[in-house]
Amino acid sequence: RGVDKGVDFANYFCTYSFLYHQKEMLCDRVRMNAYYNAVFDNKDHFYGKTVLDVGTGSGILAIWAGQAGARKVYAVEATKMAEHARELVKANKLQNVVEVIEGSIEDVNLPEKVDVIISEWMGYFLLRESMFDSVIFARDHWLKPTGVMYPSNARMWLAPIRSRLADQKMNDYEGSMGGWRSFLDETRTYYGVDMSVLSKPFSEEQKKYYLQTSLWNNLHPNQVIGTAAIIKEIDCLTVTVNDILNVRASISSTITAEETRLCGFAGWFDVHFRGSKENPAQQEIELTTAPSENHGTHWGQQVFLLHPPICVGERDNLDINFSMARSKENHRLMETVNMDKGYGWFSGLHQF
Amino acid sequence: RGVDKGVDFANYFCTYSFLYHQKEMLCDRVRMNAYYNAVFDNKDHFYGKTVLDVGTGSGILAIWAGQAGARKVYAVEATKMAEHARELVKANKLQNVVEVIEGSIEDVNLPEKVDVIISEWMGYFLLRESMFDSVIFARDHWLKPTGVMYPSNARMWLAPIRSRLADQKMNDYEGSMGGWRSFLDETRTYYGVDMSVLSKPFSEEQKKYYLQTSLWNNLHPNQVIGTAAIIKEIDCLTVTVNDILNVRASISSTITAEETRLCGFAGWFDVHFRGSKENPAQQEIELTTAPSENHGTHWGQQVFLLHPPICVGERDNLDINFSMARSKENHRLMETVNMDKGYGWFSGLHQF
Ligand SMILES: Nc1ncnc2c1ncn2[C@@H]1O[C@H](CSCC[C@H](N)C(=O)O)[C@@H](O)[C@H]1O
Ligand SMILES: Nc1ncnc2c1ncn2[C@@H]1O[C@H](CSCC[C@H](N)C(=O)O)[C@@H](O)[C@H]1O
Repeated sequence: RGVDKGVDFANYFCTYSFLYHQKEMLCDRVRMNAYYNAVFDNKDHFYGKTVLDVGTGSGILAIWAGQAGARKVYAVEATKMAEHARELVKANKLQNVVEVIEGSIEDVNLPEKVDVIISEWMGYFLLRESMFDSVIFARDHWLKPTGVMYPSNARMWLAPIRSRLADQKMNDYEGSMGGWRSFLDETRTYYGVDMSVLSKPFSEEQKKYYLQTSLWNNLHPNQVIGTAAIIKEIDCLTVTVNDILNVRASISSTITAEETRLCGFAGWFDVHFRGSKENPAQQEIELTTAPSENHGTHWGQQVFLLHPPICVGERDNLDINFSMARSKENHRLMETVNMDKGYGWFSGLHQF
Repeated sequence: RGVDKGVDFANYFCTYSFLYHQKEMLCDRVRMNAYYNAVFDNKDHFYGKTVLDVGTGSGILAIWAGQAGARKVYAVEATKMAEHARELVKANKLQNVVEVIEGSIEDVNLPEKVDVIISEWMGYFLLRESMFDSVIFARDHWLKPTGVMYPSNARMWLAPIRSRLADQKMNDYEGSMGGWRSFLDETRTYYGVDMSVLSKPFSEEQKKYYLQTSLWNNLHPNQVIGTAAIIKEIDCLTVTVNDILNVRASISSTITAEETRLCGFAGWFDVHFRGSKENPAQQEIELTTAPSENHGTHWGQQVFLLHPPICVGERDNLDINFSMARSKENHRLMETVNMDKGYGWFSGLHQF
């Protein structure tokens, strides 16, 4: 079924029109430091240049680009947040440099092509929200042939983990099914209707909700029990929408912890600011959302649980087939259709 | 701005397609008892008759109508829940009586007009969801001139209350503004951007969220501190959509509690099953969602808080102008635009 653009935009942009939500991103110090350093440690890429900020939100990246000496910054934002961005630009005395344009990047018209596209487009596990499609669109329409992308590269990672969430979710599921059984009794006794024919679909619905939906979590590094593997590498200058519609990878991971429980897998991403081959960054900056004791991000990690957990030991080898696609109902959501070790102990649809 | 039917339906029907959500309604004993008694204490209205169930969900009301001896029941449901309803009908051996039709009532075609329309269409504070529009449509198209509506009448109530929620929400708001001030400092210090120009819009956004959004609550009867007044009466047989677009009332309430705080108002509803004038019910049934110690419902009450609370005493008289309209952005949500006591101590936009 096709996705109606109007429906999609109405739903998707809703949260971004709240300052509260923009503030959550502006409070993520790992994110802020990375972009801040990317701009100010690489002033050569900005000084005297033209810049496009795709999805400027509060306007923060556009303002930094202006402060770093850009000649002109086009700051495009689809939501009413554009009005706040415009105020903020003015209050920071950059109204002659930063032009805020309210509209979706797919619809706006710029008077010129730009030297740099900067954007913070990353969703949960990198690709949720599918906002990178809009950045690719911007690049293909508005970046000069010699232009650079900020960030320039992105990678997705997967690693085996242990987590109490696995038990908790199984408990939740079993609690819900217990409640269902009393519900069946009561409905039969008091209201004369036998609902047991719905037990199977109800159990499937609840399994999907509790056991097959991937979870947001900020993991502690010691919950990662094996080597992490890259499942996708993206060169922001050359990638096409087609390249990111699906993520498929066959990877290996070696258990590094002693005798423990494999409770599932965690996915995260990093992005790099390297400029381009012709135009490398003075200072390469990394933004990583890997499990970290002190540098967690609002993205956290995406956790795919396994039910029941498996006992594993040091040096055990896992061969994993990972496959992720956009959800058919909502192209901004993802479905990991398959994640198995060949002999079937881990396979199932995980949505997020 | 007009509401696109596709967008609206996509959003609105989403939750109803989950058995989990249907189960929540099926577990509301007050609701279940009222409809159960309405049908089985008034078998004359169902025995040998044709019935239309608007929004059959799991199929429960249609099955009861069938069990009460209906000749034919058309059970219309917009979501995929229709498939489960069909299974349930079969499991309860009523497939020759109850016909489940998947589709929105505005689109389906029935082979005949019916003697009874039964529907559970009530949203929070009666009118949220605007589903009654669809029942009116069904009545105008498919009810015989002599037909009856189940329920036949509905009323909305308003009463002054006290509640700790008022303090809690004010605390939440102040906490959020405190967080904003540290955020301003940090952004200025570490990231060289002055965001203070956004303080006013942020505070307005947070006020709207914490202080001007009405709340769901199941109140204890002793939280009601004055007489309750009816703000709307609906005869389901004759009301038009136009009659329910707005609710406007000037009412009086007398404080019945001793020296206390007026923290706001609570709204609730009741519906009655009385049949029609020509065809009265054998046994009149009431379903009320008023504050109750032991008979709370999933609807609870809708609470409109007042900031700050006002000191009131026994026999004080309140004259209240109440006005509620559909939200312009989403016609299924409501805005109470105005609720004041004349000299301005209570007035504000409350959304729900
Ligand atoms: N196609 C599109 N056109 C314009 N804006 C878009 C867009 N898709 C997403 N956005 C906007 O992009 C923003 C992403 S969030 C990042 C905001 C800001 N650049 C910051 O780093 O803090 C949101 O405000 C969202 O509304
Ligand atoms: N216009 C419309 N056409 C068909 N079904 C509708 C509708 N508007 C709402 N509904 C359905 O009406 C149901 C209301 S909830 C009540 C369900 C059931 N009758 C019960 O009493 O338990 C939902 O399942 C919703 O999907």
